[in-house]
Amino acid sequence: MTDPFFHPVSGFELPRFAGIPTFMRLPHVALDDPRLAEVQVGLIGVPWDSGTTNRPGPRHGPRQMRDMSTMLRAEHGASQVRPFEAMACADLGDVAPNPADIQDAMARITRFYDRVRAAGIVPVTAGGDHLTSLPVLRALARDRPLGMIHFDSHTDLFHSYFNGMMYTHGTPFRRAVEEGLLDPKRVCQIGIRGSTYDQEDRDFARSVGIRVIPIEEFHARGVADVMAEAREIAGSGETYISYDIDFIDPAFAPGTGTPEIGGPNSYQALQVVRELEGVKIVGADVVEVSPPFDPSGGTAYLGATIMFEMLCIIAAGWDAS
Amino acid sequence: MTDPFFHPVSGFELPRFAGIPTFMRLPHVALDDPRLAEVQVGLIGVPWDSGTTNRPGPRHGPRQMRDMSTMLRAEHGASQVRPFEAMACADLGDVAPNPADIQDAMARITRFYDRVRAAGIVPVTAGGDHLTSLPVLRALARDRPLGMIHFDSHTDLFHSYFNGMMYTHGTPFRRAVEEGLLDPKRVCQIGIRGSTYDQEDRDFARSVGIRVIPIEEFHARGVADVMAEAREIAGSGETYISYDIDFIDPAFAPGTGTPEIGGPNSYQALQVVRELEGVKIVGADVVEVSPPFDPSGGTAYLGATIMFEMLCIIAAGWDAS
Amino acid sequence: MTDPFFHPVSGFELPRFAGIPTFMRLPHVALDDPRLAEVQVGLIGVPWDSGTTNRPGPRHGPRQMRDMSTMLRAEHGASQVRPFEAMACADLGDVAPNPADIQDAMARITRFYDRVRAAGIVPVTAGGDHLTSLPVLRALARDRPLGMIHFDSHTDLFHSYFNGMMYTHGTPFRRAVEEGLLDPKRVCQIGIRGSTYDQEDRDFARSVGIRVIPIEEFHARGVADVMAEAREIAGSGETYISYDIDFIDPAFAPGTGTPEIGGPNSYQALQVVRELEGVKIVGADVVEVSPPFDPSGGTAYLGATIMFEMLCIIAAGWDAS
Amino acid sequence: MTDPFFHPVSGFELPRFAGIPTFMRLPHVALDDPRLAEVQVGLIGVPWDSGTTNRPGPRHGPRQMRDMSTMLRAEHGASQVRPFEAMACADLGDVAPNPADIQDAMARITRFYDRVRAAGIVPVTAGGDHLTSLPVLRALARDRPLGMIHFDSHTDLFHSYFNGMMYTHGTPFRRAVEEGLLDPKRVCQIGIRGSTYDQEDRDFARSVGIRVIPIEEFHARGVADVMAEAREIAGSGETYISYDIDFIDPAFAPGTGTPEIGGPNSYQALQVVRELEGVKIVGADVVEVSPPFDPSGGTAYLGATIMFEMLCIIAAGWDAS
Amino acid sequence: MTDPFFHPVSGFELPRFAGIPTFMRLPHVALDDPRLAEVQVGLIGVPWDSGTTNRPGPRHGPRQMRDMSTMLRAEHGASQVRPFEAMACADLGDVAPNPADIQDAMARITRFYDRVRAAGIVPVTAGGDHLTSLPVLRALARDRPLGMIHFDSHTDLFHSYFNGMMYTHGTPFRRAVEEGLLDPKRVCQIGIRGSTYDQEDRDFARSVGIRVIPIEEFHARGVADVMAEAREIAGSGETYISYDIDFIDPAFAPGTGTPEIGGPNSYQALQVVRELEGVKIVGADVVEVSPPFDPSGGTAYLGATIMFEMLCIIAAGWDAS
Amino acid sequence: MTDPFFHPVSGFELPRFAGIPTFMRLPHVALDDPRLAEVQVGLIGVPWDSGTTNRPGPRHGPRQMRDMSTMLRAEHGASQVRPFEAMACADLGDVAPNPADIQDAMARITRFYDRVRAAGIVPVTAGGDHLTSLPVLRALARDRPLGMIHFDSHTDLFHSYFNGMMYTHGTPFRRAVEEGLLDPKRVCQIGIRGSTYDQEDRDFARSVGIRVIPIEEFHARGVADVMAEAREIAGSGETYISYDIDFIDPAFAPGTGTPEIGGPNSYQALQVVRELEGVKIVGADVVEVSPPFDPSGGTAYLGATIMFEMLCIIAAGWDAS
Repeated sequence: MTDPFFHPVSGFELPRFAGIPTFMRLPHVALDDPRLAEVQVGLIGVPWDSGTTNRPGPRHGPRQMRDMSTMLRAEHGASQVRPFEAMACADLGDVAPNPADIQDAMARITRFYDRVRAAGIVPVTAGGDHLTSLPVLRALARDRPLGMIHFDSHTDLFHSYFNGMMYTHGTPFRRAVEEGLLDPKRVCQIGIRGSTYDQEDRDFARSVGIRVIPIEEFHARGVADVMAEAREIAGSGETYISYDIDFIDPAFAPGTGTPEIGGPNSYQALQVVRELEGVKIVGADVVEVSPPFDPSGGTAYLGATIMFEMLCIIAAGWDAS
Repeated sequence: MTDPFFHPVSGFELPRFAGIPTFMRLPHVALDDPRLAEVQVGLIGVPWDSGTTNRPGPRHGPRQMRDMSTMLRAEHGASQVRPFEAMACADLGDVAPNPADIQDAMARITRFYDRVRAAGIVPVTAGGDHLTSLPVLRALARDRPLGMIHFDSHTDLFHSYFNGMMYTHGTPFRRAVEEGLLDPKRVCQIGIRGSTYDQEDRDFARSVGIRVIPIEEFHARGVADVMAEAREIAGSGETYISYDIDFIDPAFAPGTGTPEIGGPNSYQALQVVRELEGVKIVGADVVEVSPPFDPSGGTAYLGATIMFEMLCIIAAGWDAS
Repeated sequence: MTDPFFHPVSGFELPRFAGIPTFMRLPHVALDDPRLAEVQVGLIGVPWDSGTTNRPGPRHGPRQMRDMSTMLRAEHGASQVRPFEAMACADLGDVAPNPADIQDAMARITRFYDRVRAAGIVPVTAGGDHLTSLPVLRALARDRPLGMIHFDSHTDLFHSYFNGMMYTHGTPFRRAVEEGLLDPKRVCQIGIRGSTYDQEDRDFARSVGIRVIPIEEFHARGVADVMAEAREIAGSGETYISYDIDFIDPAFAPGTGTPEIGGPNSYQALQVVRELEGVKIVGADVVEVSPPFDPSGGTAYLGATIMFEMLCIIAAGWDAS
Repeated sequence: MTDPFFHPVSGFELPRFAGIPTFMRLPHVALDDPRLAEVQVGLIGVPWDSGTTNRPGPRHGPRQMRDMSTMLRAEHGASQVRPFEAMACADLGDVAPNPADIQDAMARITRFYDRVRAAGIVPVTAGGDHLTSLPVLRALARDRPLGMIHFDSHTDLFHSYFNGMMYTHGTPFRRAVEEGLLDPKRVCQIGIRGSTYDQEDRDFARSVGIRVIPIEEFHARGVADVMAEAREIAGSGETYISYDIDFIDPAFAPGTGTPEIGGPNSYQALQVVRELEGVKIVGADVVEVSPPFDPSGGTAYLGATIMFEMLCIIAAGWDAS
Repeated sequence: MTDPFFHPVSGFELPRFAGIPTFMRLPHVALDDPRLAEVQVGLIGVPWDSGTTNRPGPRHGPRQMRDMSTMLRAEHGASQVRPFEAMACADLGDVAPNPADIQDAMARITRFYDRVRAAGIVPVTAGGDHLTSLPVLRALARDRPLGMIHFDSHTDLFHSYFNGMMYTHGTPFRRAVEEGLLDPKRVCQIGIRGSTYDQEDRDFARSVGIRVIPIEEFHARGVADVMAEAREIAGSGETYISYDIDFIDPAFAPGTGTPEIGGPNSYQALQVVRELEGVKIVGADVVEVSPPFDPSGGTAYLGATIMFEMLCIIAAGWDAS
Repeated sequence: MTDPFFHPVSGFELPRFAGIPTFMRLPHVALDDPRLAEVQVGLIGVPWDSGTTNRPGPRHGPRQMRDMSTMLRAEHGASQVRPFEAMACADLGDVAPNPADIQDAMARITRFYDRVRAAGIVPVTAGGDHLTSLPVLRALARDRPLGMIHFDSHTDLFHSYFNGMMYTHGTPFRRAVEEGLLDPKRVCQIGIRGSTYDQEDRDFARSVGIRVIPIEEFHARGVADVMAEAREIAGSGETYISYDIDFIDPAFAPGTGTPEIGGPNSYQALQVVRELEGVKIVGADVVEVSPPFDPSGGTAYLGATIMFEMLCIIAAGWDAS
């Protein structure tokens, strides 16, 4: 049982619409806070979307996800896991990005996560666009490649955009493989769909051994079967989870910049996370929530719920360790 | 065949966007109207949300449901039931709530439904938040407990909120069981999900014999199987149907105060009502439609369609009786 | 391989948010443009909703569909078909409707499509309300009846509305059968649902041999089985495809005037088009997208994606011919 | 003091969000209701927009204006006039339009207003697009021309649109002058602005003696001065008031189809009505409220408030008569 | 110069869209924080709307105002006052209301403000509906009556609602006068307008000596003249400022529950605060911001800007003291 | 009289909701089109917002402005100027920006405008954020400094942001002065307001002789007086007009990223442009229209109307030259 300092404020004490919104009503523990040493899982915002090639907005994602996350309660309805009692969780605040310089912004993010990792904290990130994952991986995978289970409608494996731009939200995992941050044979991408420029990304995937499961296969096989394969690919090694909200059908998650028709529904969106049980998770993110395209907050609420499911899965493994 | 006075205005006569909007374009028959004696099924609004613990709004539900219900026509597309010819249906107007006094408001609602019941009318209610069901049941179940089939993502069986508040939209059925209005062994709750404070509600359910079917079981077994069990639990006795719009996934029903991810889709939402055939329904409600969270009216249209499905199922039984 | 003139502008050259929006970023080739002779497939807007009996808006559909279609890319994600390389496609612009005179508007539309047909171009139309299909069919089926596969929640087979109005969006296919434009024995209507005035439309369908597949049957049998029957009904003859966006559940396609609860999801919405492979398509439309009821553009994006799926299916057949 | 039957329901009895929404919570008295004979001022909806040349929607105006009008109370804040006690007011319901036939729709409207006039009732109309005024005037001015004070950003004096269409919302007052329904020398148009096709409308105005006060003059002279002139033009004869909501700046009234930048603010919008005191008003309308372009209801609330101001001005004259 | 701990985070360090949103990016200092003793001005949220008689929502006001307040910077553009350097300001968090019990909620608010007052902190409150002001005044005016300058479209001086409810957002200042919290001769209400039930509130005002300045007088005299009178009424004694956002015209502030047409524009809305210079302010509030009626946040941004203007005026006086 | 090729499509021929939307329905003439040589005034989109420091979105501005501009007609309502007959105007399309590289994007913009200038075309630009003006000025002022009349709520004269970023939408005119593109003594900035970081920008203005007219002065003196001074400052030399949409109050122009309360209304927004008569305009822009913050299009319509006013003023001078 964790210290009550790390328990979220109850809606029975302070109604859910009240209070300064931190992730899941957890305490805010900044990187220079003395209690950082006690934190085991850190929820972090990366309000940054400089990698976005079409419709910007994910820079506003962490704030809206914090707001909507106040509707979540302390216990998982199905598994009865109580993550905040199992692990000391805290809101570590936002990385300060530089919205006008991609390289500087990436350096700032990596430095932040270096400190998080140094403190032994498992980071669960609210993006930000998908380029966010690259500087995070640079910190988490500095010394050995990680496996990755990646939910998305796009592979994000392209070489470059716009006349040689190497760092966009369509390229992070190409870079991550090139930089040795990911072990491509332990990478599985699930839900890929939508029209494409060409096959360049998938050719790369094949050439390095990344497993791509298109949405047609996902719908045909079902969640349990697909996720069993994903777990097998990730194996027993350290694994990163990257969850692009556009994995989910845009009717459920309209607040995103590059929606693709025909995705999973919200129940499947949660089930794939529950099926991560047993994976050795060293970090996770939920990216591409774009509030300007969903002022209602429904997409952010879905994103926050996925973060909660991630916490519960991590907590389930925590108990066992 | 009912008196044409009780038939809705046809869209061929007056276009659906025209006219003062009553429920399903039925005649408005106030409680003091002489034609009340002819009414067999009454559609009633309870514009009240004082039991809401987080995001208010259902007080505006009846008006938006009336508006959107004007898109409904006279015949059920699948069953070909024509409810308004089978039973004399009318819009009985709204209960006048007291938005500033919960006890007074509940007393006003119960008095209204006492008169409805005295007139031998089956009420189909548009809420209002879920606390609405309690004062309605106090009238309908005054002399013997009812069974209940309850669609929701929450059990609404909690003991109290905020330092002992016994009457909120999270507590109505706890009170109803305590007051002897429901026979817990004839109560079935379907679709329960989402994060929870703790197990207090489910412990109570178990202790009194209420059957809770969580969403995971619902999705695994399917509508037909779950509803067969629900009918068996309700049995041949008099039964109330309570339908919280947050039973349905928030992509389909965003206009509600306490959404929970991962619910049924809209087709399942209708099918569960169709599977009520044979249940002895003495009253029904659709609650928690909150227009401020869905100005488009889509949620209200879904709620009104569920009310229409309820009418058709009641009419199907009516023919047989 | 088509002339590069007919290839869409790449998002790598001009970002997808930039540029004057034509359908799928194709060149605009007006009817009097000398390059019209090279066009094989023409995307055409019919901004017209004078047949609408309830909530107007589809007159704004083509513009919003053009806008959202700029998010589509050159290759189909699953089939790898590259339609714009297989066939010379162009945006032929909008028909100039007369919003104040139904007969004049229909005459203008038919004249436009006469010229399109004379040029040997396969038209793929963005409506407009469903009455649009009638003047289009008058051009395409002038000399022999066509088969039709029709996705919708309504049959649009009614005789008349409002005191004898023969031309509304609820009557186009009644007229088309009467005028010999459709061979009713080769017509299949899929997804029919919702409350109805009466059985007059379905009685007509039965009397002439139109096959109506209600949504209940659709959900029970599944896409593949239903579409196999549809292909069999259409047979090897020339066939028109008419796709009312209200075929799809309103959670996925809220931007429409007459939504009906309980429809297919977005994945099924795409799959039914993919299952048209082998049908001899001489024209197609996507109608009833109504931007005022979905300012987000999500419905228009879904409609544009369906148009893209249609192009890919036509292209698949093109290769084979 | 009028019969209490004609008093609106008080918000102290039934909260303003409750109840079936009639105009200003007045009783609904249909044309065949025996109490019609007692009505002195009738509020009437004309849900019709077939004259709209660009963005449709005003057919939905009366319903949203009814809904928002429930926020109005019994007494004018500044003048302390209590219109519902001074005159027997009632909601006469909506005219049933034919949305698919302009001539039939106009005939229906005129017949309705013939009956209203025959009953000696002063009609205050909620449109509908501006073509609505023409069939209303055909009833009210059947036997002698009326004066008119007309608030608008457009003159609505054009000859025809689209190849000879004589009946659109840009032509009603041209027709009304031609048909002898208006005495052009007693017509004043206030607020005219925005880009124009040409001077055809203003040339006509000049040729028949209609006074056009452009917005520049309005802003330069101020409300009091302009309205003094308007009253002088209307003189002591019977006068119709026509108020197009697009008279007001679109920041205050975004819910309309043809907004023009640079109009009066909301205070001026009310003041111009207050300055009608002394004018002999035989009918009035508020038109072009288009709910799809303002789902918030703010524009409809403004429109309903203008209707209330009209009632108060009529009541002020009533007391004197 | 205050301790840098009390300076807001600069947008040059952390972009304005980043970070956990406190009021104006100030430090969060809870009531039990040791630094409370250093705070001179406290920004406090009261997320509570149980006094609302029509459209609820202000319970969500503080959170949205915090969010939008992050767009404000350190220095007043016109006066060059830098309030956060002049006075130690902090976000004291939200009062925990009881949404289901008005009396308990008021007691909680008063207790919170008792502690604030005991700490010598000037509170600037973000409501909440207008009933909020009553329990705040019970703490601030416990030992002597205060003067008040009150911006609003309603007097909020009614006796009771709904069959004797004494505590609603229409009654707080009636109660405050009765309880001796306000010296009515030092109270000035500005901007009053809109339809009314009757003159009961104004009769009361007259009877106790409250000065009511209706909107017509406000527009006729102008800001400077009206505010000179207001300052004279308040005199040199301790004064409370209460600012209902519905003082402002609904085009500028649509996010509120009881809008009234014809109010001041946003420039006037700021000017009236600037004209408070010299008033001895002991507390201030901005109430009735209702996010569900303005999801864009524009109203909350206006409300937050008014809070900033209040801080600057207080700071101007601070320097002088 | 210009060649009819350069006249916009009339709404009497093709309704305003129809057709592929170019600016004001003008012909699209790309830079490589042979008719470019005939163009005298070019409307150009710069869909780019990489300089945005807070809320992105202006990259979507040109498309929404094109869409809304279709509501404009051929003649100015007040001056009767017919700009499209006075000068050959065309839509030159969008500059292709690089959203991921600020320097590359600026180089692309400057190259585009070099060609425009080489063709002797006066450019009227739809941004884009305000950094857009810098690369435009680099082309237009390559060989001599220009004067500038600048409408805005911010000076955009800051030195740098975020640790030395020299190119943001807060710095363009600092750079322009440093690069010799503007003659600061001939620069006038009107409407400046809102909270500020500090006085660094205004100190710079003073040091180089830029005249800053804050909003307080604007409201006190009125449009005519302020604009007379602005014309005097600009003098008879070549002058650039830069119009940031946030000059206007956010109630009128909510669709922008950095709104400031208390600005001019929409009538004043137009009047300031009309008062530019006599200024020697060599280019103009309307920037910072951000569609994600106003999906209704009202802000874009206001922006397009300002562009039309600019064309009319340029045309008025054209006649004289």
